[in-house]
Amino acid sequence: MAFNDRFLKACRREPVDATPVWLMRQAGRYLREYRDIRAKYDFLTMCKRPDIAAEITLQPVDKLGVDAAILFADILLPLEGMGIDLEFAKGEGPVIHNPVRTKADVVKIQVIEAEEATPYVAEAIKIVRRELEGRVPLIGFSGAPFTLASYIVEGSGSRDYRYAKAMMYEAPEAWHALMEKLAEIVTRYLRMQIKAGAQAVQMFDSWVGALGPVDYEKHVMPYSKIVMDNLADEGVPRIHFANNASTLLELVAAAGGDVIGVDWRINLDIAWERIGYDKAIQGNLDPITLFGPVECIEDRVKDILSRAGGLPGHIFNLGHGIHKDTPVEHAQALVEAVHRLSQR
Amino acid sequence: MAFNDRFLKACRREPVDATPVWLMRQAGRYLREYRDIRAKYDFLTMCKRPDIAAEITLQPVDKLGVDAAILFADILLPLEGMGIDLEFAKGEGPVIHNPVRTKADVVKIQVIEAEEATPYVAEAIKIVRRELEGRVPLIGFSGAPFTLASYIVEGSGSRDYRYAKAMMYEAPEAWHALMEKLAEIVTRYLRMQIKAGAQAVQMFDSWVGALGPVDYEKHVMPYSKIVMDNLADEGVPRIHFANNASTLLELVAAAGGDVIGVDWRINLDIAWERIGYDKAIQGNLDPITLFGPVECIEDRVKDILSRAGGLPGHIFNLGHGIHKDTPVEHAQALVEAVHRLSQR
Repeated sequence: MAFNDRFLKACRREPVDATPVWLMRQAGRYLREYRDIRAKYDFLTMCKRPDIAAEITLQPVDKLGVDAAILFADILLPLEGMGIDLEFAKGEGPVIHNPVRTKADVVKIQVIEAEEATPYVAEAIKIVRRELEGRVPLIGFSGAPFTLASYIVEGSGSRDYRYAKAMMYEAPEAWHALMEKLAEIVTRYLRMQIKAGAQAVQMFDSWVGALGPVDYEKHVMPYSKIVMDNLADEGVPRIHFANNASTLLELVAAAGGDVIGVDWRINLDIAWERIGYDKAIQGNLDPITLFGPVECIEDRVKDILSRAGGLPGHIFNLGHGIHKDTPVEHAQALVEAVHRLSQR
Repeated sequence: MAFNDRFLKACRREPVDATPVWLMRQAGRYLREYRDIRAKYDFLTMCKRPDIAAEITLQPVDKLGVDAAILFADILLPLEGMGIDLEFAKGEGPVIHNPVRTKADVVKIQVIEAEEATPYVAEAIKIVRRELEGRVPLIGFSGAPFTLASYIVEGSGSRDYRYAKAMMYEAPEAWHALMEKLAEIVTRYLRMQIKAGAQAVQMFDSWVGALGPVDYEKHVMPYSKIVMDNLADEGVPRIHFANNASTLLELVAAAGGDVIGVDWRINLDIAWERIGYDKAIQGNLDPITLFGPVECIEDRVKDILSRAGGLPGHIFNLGHGIHKDTPVEHAQALVEAVHRLSQR
């Protein structure tokens, strides 16, 4: 089977035969095959057993016909080994029993080698690469420093990020020390993934949309930049996705990345203009569109492709993770439509 | 006592002696006086008893020194009389037991006169006007058609608005019929408030930030425009606030309003440029800033005032409702700082 390199070519802004497409959270609950595994194991076991994580990673590749695989893993795995007491409470999402809020808390955080903290992630990558036999490239990923910090400081998911923001305002030294450690942890975690075989990496800043531009520039951007800079010479494309961050796009692009991911709240043409055409762009269909009829999905695909204007460097994706109740056949129809409607 | 008309002047983009300021949700849980009342009555009683609603409305006026009062009311009150089975479930927020999702559901919705559906709102406004004795103007408000529709269709608060969006895609006729009815209901509700004495009105589109520009323009904007157009000749300023909608600002401004409210995710200078200087602007401090030290609050006030550039037509506000745990003395410090630092 020939290697499908559309995705990697588009990351490098090289011409492609059709626009590559993959879906954030494509290895997930909307797939029956995923739910079958989920019924047998708890969530952390699924992340930590390389054979299971690899199997889940591979599920959508043939089923959807996407142009890239993305590693199945939880966004909080890089916290392992830091001394963070993390629990996945049933139905509640992650809970951290010792939230970090003071300088003393930050000092206690361990920065250890990723190979020691999360060896199972590297192992899963090796299995996936072997099983893929070069069909499509594999993307590794990590949460961005701010997104990890927000969990560590809040102690759970949050609607307002009041503890994280209060730490920026009241204890800026402690905040900066925390972000510095996290930038190093994310760097090591992604380097390990690249070494293990990841052919591209995506850094997700899932919650950064809670910040205004002044806070982003002062308290977050320097650390996202450290990670992107650290990975510049690794020889794989770096995707930088900041969710709900349309007003931060120029700053996100300046922080770095070869590809900038955008959510669905902004039209792709406007987003690319603001990011700059020296970078590739990834996005940006509203995931909820997949609940609509197929004709409606096709209309939106056409709209996004036309806004991309046939320029090299567009990777089609959703603007956020695929919803767990999405009909699989609509996800399949999306992938098929992107390929058909973008054929050069 | 002289009438403080800074707020109304700024709405009309006339010069003022200092920038007017009020806070979204200023009549709320962060005030001990509010919590004392809340301990005695359930939430709907507080909304429906004009004497109580009036008392709560007045609480922040002297306590904070704000330049406007805003009516205490729930955003879902205009649904009264429509045949919507609404309940404020304890700790869960609003629940609608008969969500509207089909054409047949929409047909059943009643559009009755606001005086008949919510006479207690008009009554509360009359009491507030009497008690204010002209000290500061009173703002009336309503949810925007989309925000009301999102509750009616989802049946509760939502993270993804999948039923509302699916209705747009699968049953566009039903969606448009629903929005048409809601535009009429919101118009009547705000007209009643103006007739009762509201000296300005704000339409909150709290959840519209879930939509991309294509959906907003096609499925929402025409109905927000109907409301704004309907109120154009009422002789009071119309504030139009769309939350988390930085990428929709041009469309929101085009839908109408004399003042456009903006959240904190965008710098105010950029926002005003995109809205156009023919409209006044309201915003846009991150409400969580009030958890930081007073010096930090002052720094942010300075930043926003300097971005407003001393042009007539800026009303200072938070970018979203004040958080329930906000220290009152920080809210007071904010109001004082805005007045002091903006003195002409």
